[in-house]
Amino acid sequence: MKSFIPYEDHSDFSIHNIPFGVAIFADDEIGCVTRIGSTVINLAVLYDNGYFEAFDLGENIFEAFTLNEFISLGKSVTVPIRERIQELLLEGSELSKDEATQKEAFHLIHNVSMQLPVHVPNYTDFYSSIEHATNVGKMFRDPENALLPNWKHLPVGYHGRASSIVVSGTPIHRPKGQTLPPDASAPVFGPTKRLDFELEVAFITNSYTDLGESVSTAEAEEHIFGLVLFNDWSARDMQKWEYVPLGPFLAKNFGSSVSPWVVTLEALDPFRMEGPKQEPEVLDYLKFEGKKNFDINLQTFIANDAAGENLICTSNFKYMYWNMAQQLAHHTVNGCNLEVGDMYASGTISGKTEDSFGSMLELTWSGTKPLKLKDGSERKFIEDHDTVIMRGWCEKDGKRVGFGEVSGKILPAKA
Amino acid sequence: MKSFIPYEDHSDFSIHNIPFGVAIFADDEIGCVTRIGSTVINLAVLYDNGYFEAFDLGENIFEAFTLNEFISLGKSVTVPIRERIQELLLEGSELSKDEATQKEAFHLIHNVSMQLPVHVPNYTDFYSSIEHATNVGKMFRDPENALLPNWKHLPVGYHGRASSIVVSGTPIHRPKGQTLPPDASAPVFGPTKRLDFELEVAFITNSYTDLGESVSTAEAEEHIFGLVLFNDWSARDMQKWEYVPLGPFLAKNFGSSVSPWVVTLEALDPFRMEGPKQEPEVLDYLKFEGKKNFDINLQTFIANDAAGENLICTSNFKYMYWNMAQQLAHHTVNGCNLEVGDMYASGTISGKTEDSFGSMLELTWSGTKPLKLKDGSERKFIEDHDTVIMRGWCEKDGKRVGFGEVSGKILPAKA
Repeated sequence: MKSFIPYEDHSDFSIHNIPFGVAIFADDEIGCVTRIGSTVINLAVLYDNGYFEAFDLGENIFEAFTLNEFISLGKSVTVPIRERIQELLLEGSELSKDEATQKEAFHLIHNVSMQLPVHVPNYTDFYSSIEHATNVGKMFRDPENALLPNWKHLPVGYHGRASSIVVSGTPIHRPKGQTLPPDASAPVFGPTKRLDFELEVAFITNSYTDLGESVSTAEAEEHIFGLVLFNDWSARDMQKWEYVPLGPFLAKNFGSSVSPWVVTLEALDPFRMEGPKQEPEVLDYLKFEGKKNFDINLQTFIANDAAGENLICTSNFKYMYWNMAQQLAHHTVNGCNLEVGDMYASGTISGKTEDSFGSMLELTWSGTKPLKLKDGSERKFIEDHDTVIMRGWCEKDGKRVGFGEVSGKILPAKA
Repeated sequence: MKSFIPYEDHSDFSIHNIPFGVAIFADDEIGCVTRIGSTVINLAVLYDNGYFEAFDLGENIFEAFTLNEFISLGKSVTVPIRERIQELLLEGSELSKDEATQKEAFHLIHNVSMQLPVHVPNYTDFYSSIEHATNVGKMFRDPENALLPNWKHLPVGYHGRASSIVVSGTPIHRPKGQTLPPDASAPVFGPTKRLDFELEVAFITNSYTDLGESVSTAEAEEHIFGLVLFNDWSARDMQKWEYVPLGPFLAKNFGSSVSPWVVTLEALDPFRMEGPKQEPEVLDYLKFEGKKNFDINLQTFIANDAAGENLICTSNFKYMYWNMAQQLAHHTVNGCNLEVGDMYASGTISGKTEDSFGSMLELTWSGTKPLKLKDGSERKFIEDHDTVIMRGWCEKDGKRVGFGEVSGKILPAKA
């Protein structure tokens, strides 16, 4: 497959990708878009110019502030539409000869402002990397029994805050809150001293289910439109003090950053693989067939003016112990209902080696082994004016499909 | 104050109340409403007939599926509108003489179908009754140190599921999930055997704040439109197995029921009182001035065909250790942003006496002391076909302001 739009060999946004997002253009118009190489394509213009006439879409659903309405059409519509876009971008297509539409619909990426791709009605965060859960258990609980008894029987998860999910590039103020200093008997108030990232991937659902209805592992992927990179910012000192007995709260809800491009499950299909063996055997409702893990390379960088970009973590989505189909089956087995645009994040994705840990907590082993940056400075946790960048991509047989990046800069705590 | 609309002395919906809700009428139209006695009043008709002309409301914001747009106008508008409605309902008012408008706008409560009053973007559940937290700590942790170290320093809370919040009257299927039977080494799957209610009150916010912005205790009540009764259904056996380390998840998110009438903070103003003394002293950002607790009588009933209605709990919102202003100040002190329609529930409201405990878990002391119903049957937890009803009201100096009820029937688990 060759597109008439040129792009670099290593572009995440190859002809095999065709992700979806929402952009504000130079003229302040907003619309749903796709991307190939550095070219962002306004799908609302393609619609207006008749390129989706074969579909019964009603009004122009790409003239929207979010992808929610589009993805709510379900895979029977969104999959052929993605294929249609792919076809239009090939050499020799109608669109390749339609310079008027190209002029109207095509924008360079640096001329648009990417927005949060979906409105997020509900956000859940899982805890599905066995390496991450083991590392945290070793540090905070019992090194000999690092995993809690429930961990291998169900994909542990909890509800997070939807309102504070922001798109890549949105700066985050260092949060303030209560922490209990070592050996103190009463907490103190102030900016967190242990600000962390968590390297995660989140999936987005495309349907409303009824309260009381369950989604099986076999049905689950029909409900998943696509994936984004997800940085679950965390304040470790606040978390440690607040989290018993009801879980993380203010340590997490000051902000979570997501990448602007939703990569569809179909684009990721060539990169499926087996997950880790699950032992003991899971209960029936968590059993599944087929390859449900995905080989997505993940990297995390700390960047600032003095030190430039520093690669601090190389991980992979394939390490997930619990896959997305199991997560969704578990989430709904009690009848909990799904909504269009919901985000379900994986939890921190760590691998087995020390350089594959997906948080500063693990990389510096709770601050005991600082990382060195290129300018000689050390990091136990994230400092003010640091930018954390996460990148993710798949590559196989010369095909590359990627997410681009999610980045977020930490600003000093507000006065 | 006397209304031209007659109502019983003990009506929750007196001229002093003027709550807000959303109703579907006999002709399938939907609109924002208020209520006095048994009369539901379509505010969209009052608007159309010129009764709110003094306000600069733009389009008819009462012609809506939710109260969100109305409450987003803020107290500077919603408070005078409530006062205007109250004035219109008095003897001798313009409306009392306008039979045409009455005919168009007035409905009997049994002819309308009450809806969820707001769209809920975010839902948080606190854990702010010291008696409840102490009871749970005694049962599940250490009777000598029932409260965890953080409890008196901050209003513990966690995020819940917004999608499964339903209006009073919506039946709930008994959820299925994993539980660990006593002395078993592996979990089993099936319907919960320990289905419980939690007697709570929730407040609803009326504003969007910016990410990074905090709301002080002094400012908090400006952001609170009003309150509803809230039943936080819980599956105790599922909760016990799943909740470490990230908090309750499937044990809660299969459904939460709310009363349809939002009682404004202004209507509750005469019922303010001091809360319990907070010792040790709280951190500065949690300090507050004035009376921030409210004297709201609360009752819970179990009802079914055989046993009729059985009063099983008599509690009061005044017992709350942490007040709503402190909850909101805590929630936002890290910069977490609010949205219009957010629900913030109190957590189970228990008093000191055994008949004031706000859950079956506490009332039957984890099933060890079953309750007897009128037909001689016993209840350790909630059984299929039981309806749980919660009522709440304030009464003082001959004025009564109430919530009506939130009820929900438990249906058998789905096959």
